[in-house]
Amino acid sequence: MVIRQNLRTPGPTPIPDDIVAALGSPMIDHRGPEFRDLIRKVTAQLKQVFMTRYDVLILTASGTGSLEAAIVNSLSPGDKVLMPTAGAFGDRFGDAAEAYGAQVQRLLVEWGTAIDPDIIRRALRADPEIKAVLITHNETSTGITHDLEAISSVVKGEFNKLLLVDAVSSLGCIPLPVDGWNCDLVGTASQKGFMIPPGLSFISVSPAAWEAQKTAAMPRFYFDLKAARQYLERGQTPWTPNVAAFYGLSAALDKLLVQGMESVFEHHADIGQFTREGVRDLGLDLLSQDEARASNTVTAVKIPASVDGPRLVKLMHDEEHVVLAGGQGKLAGKIFRIGHLGYVSREDIEEVLAALKRVLPRVGYSAF
Amino acid sequence: MVIRQNLRTPGPTPIPDDIVAALGSPMIDHRGPEFRDLIRKVTAQLKQVFMTRYDVLILTASGTGSLEAAIVNSLSPGDKVLMPTAGAFGDRFGDAAEAYGAQVQRLLVEWGTAIDPDIIRRALRADPEIKAVLITHNETSTGITHDLEAISSVVKGEFNKLLLVDAVSSLGCIPLPVDGWNCDLVGTASQKGFMIPPGLSFISVSPAAWEAQKTAAMPRFYFDLKAARQYLERGQTPWTPNVAAFYGLSAALDKLLVQGMESVFEHHADIGQFTREGVRDLGLDLLSQDEARASNTVTAVKIPASVDGPRLVKLMHDEEHVVLAGGQGKLAGKIFRIGHLGYVSREDIEEVLAALKRVLPRVGYSAF
Repeated sequence: MVIRQNLRTPGPTPIPDDIVAALGSPMIDHRGPEFRDLIRKVTAQLKQVFMTRYDVLILTASGTGSLEAAIVNSLSPGDKVLMPTAGAFGDRFGDAAEAYGAQVQRLLVEWGTAIDPDIIRRALRADPEIKAVLITHNETSTGITHDLEAISSVVKGEFNKLLLVDAVSSLGCIPLPVDGWNCDLVGTASQKGFMIPPGLSFISVSPAAWEAQKTAAMPRFYFDLKAARQYLERGQTPWTPNVAAFYGLSAALDKLLVQGMESVFEHHADIGQFTREGVRDLGLDLLSQDEARASNTVTAVKIPASVDGPRLVKLMHDEEHVVLAGGQGKLAGKIFRIGHLGYVSREDIEEVLAALKRVLPRVGYSAF
Repeated sequence: MVIRQNLRTPGPTPIPDDIVAALGSPMIDHRGPEFRDLIRKVTAQLKQVFMTRYDVLILTASGTGSLEAAIVNSLSPGDKVLMPTAGAFGDRFGDAAEAYGAQVQRLLVEWGTAIDPDIIRRALRADPEIKAVLITHNETSTGITHDLEAISSVVKGEFNKLLLVDAVSSLGCIPLPVDGWNCDLVGTASQKGFMIPPGLSFISVSPAAWEAQKTAAMPRFYFDLKAARQYLERGQTPWTPNVAAFYGLSAALDKLLVQGMESVFEHHADIGQFTREGVRDLGLDLLSQDEARASNTVTAVKIPASVDGPRLVKLMHDEEHVVLAGGQGKLAGKIFRIGHLGYVSREDIEEVLAALKRVLPRVGYSAF
């Protein structure tokens, strides 16, 4: 017997059937005319989704690969970078920069809260040598969408530093006008808003980022964006690309752009609000009380003190076939998370809420 | 109208229908029990194909990613490495090492010939400071399989240096007993012998390689093998893996191991010989006259002086729906290549030969 899982991790997301079919398209020569047409089509479409008139490059790697690419293509060992972080993914971005020798100044913000642009302003004022700011747009580990527009107005508008953005769990779901918000390098991945399997990542590169690349001395080979741009000019990639995922991406982008990105963003906003209201109706607390900055792609829910959290997640998985995500890092055992991005409907969330209602009383919850 | 292409590039290869179906399996949580079972199963099977009792790690990247991983996990900037090369892929391996600051001594061997282990012996004797040797097992750009067993007996047996192997177009098709030949880091990719789309790469790591990793100072993050090993212990990967390709890999490994690797190797040897004989029967010359070292995964054919090479490849593509690969680097325009690895039958090659027979006279060939 095969049972349909309701996969509610914040990526990978379920894949629509027609995109699954596209993934199975016959292999083609990645140095031939069919692939050239394919990469040109999806690159043009990706630029619409990124809302940029500059470059978007496609890497055969998961999202972390695009973040490493952002770092190694714009920085040199010893460069000072500022990294405000309020969660596990913010931390990871800084870890990557440190691995390549950047001096990372971490601004530690309480997990589950939004980063105040003013702390960035003060840090940049205090140290004029800081070259770049790394920011995670949507913190998947806490369910908070940081105010990238306001942060950019400080980083770019007031100080004109490089702005590197982890948009893995936001782009394509939550508005992120890359040019409008003046972002230099923005990385995201295929298994979230794009509704295809993991294995491709996408990165936008501004003119200022290309300028920085000229002197960026961090070593790079697989993730060299200049090579990616050169090969793209002839409709190729430097290394063999994930052709199957390109087909899936093409089908997904057709769907997204026919629906219209404004409508896609509204859908995520509706589902996000529906999820938060449903969780509160069960008497549970959200990790964050900041409704204005609540993520519309993932919701983090506090596990009440009386509840056996691991058993909750296990029963949801084994008996209800609802796959939740646990907490990461210091939130392990303290929260669970519901993903609601990409291919998700109100009915999917209703199933989650109904299942929680059945399971919670069995794991120590007495509020209803 | 959709026409079946006979895709005869040396990767990506066509995908068997049942593996295509497996690629479309529903997404799962990459931090959950289903993925844990999946990665443990395929890792155990990969170790059989690599013929190693040590570690094999799976990276979400194409083959070049595994080669970068081999380098950055075993070397430090300034390390001297020896790179005998007789083709475009040999060159690429050295380029990756140089990008990360290794001092690469290139032993340039004529393209289309096999590397003589004795030149490696002399170079290692001349410079005892050389730490590692980079070797491409099967040179896809020329159709030569270098004698890795003999090379290893020099590199490991006589000098005990680190041996890093590019096995992208050999492993799973041509015998490469990783432990038997004492190889330290061997990288390969999914879109060749494994008959799945590009997007995963596999790398074996010997105890000596792990020892080298402890002091290897090249920076690494996405391709850090220690992180990959740590996560594998709990049935995960550090970064979101290409889940769809894992499903395909599982189906492919089942097929390969049921058939038996000896039988898979014999099949490639038969097809390789059949291809070379067929090409010679058309009166064409192979790039290499060295039958003993002829590759059983790809055959490079000289384009006769009278023949319009680009038009040959174009007519084969447009009218015969046979996709050949051209020459790379300095062989561009001088050869074409026929891939015969992974999912390939004698009938596929018969089609290629019949199509060549029809097209050659139209592009200036007068031998028949």
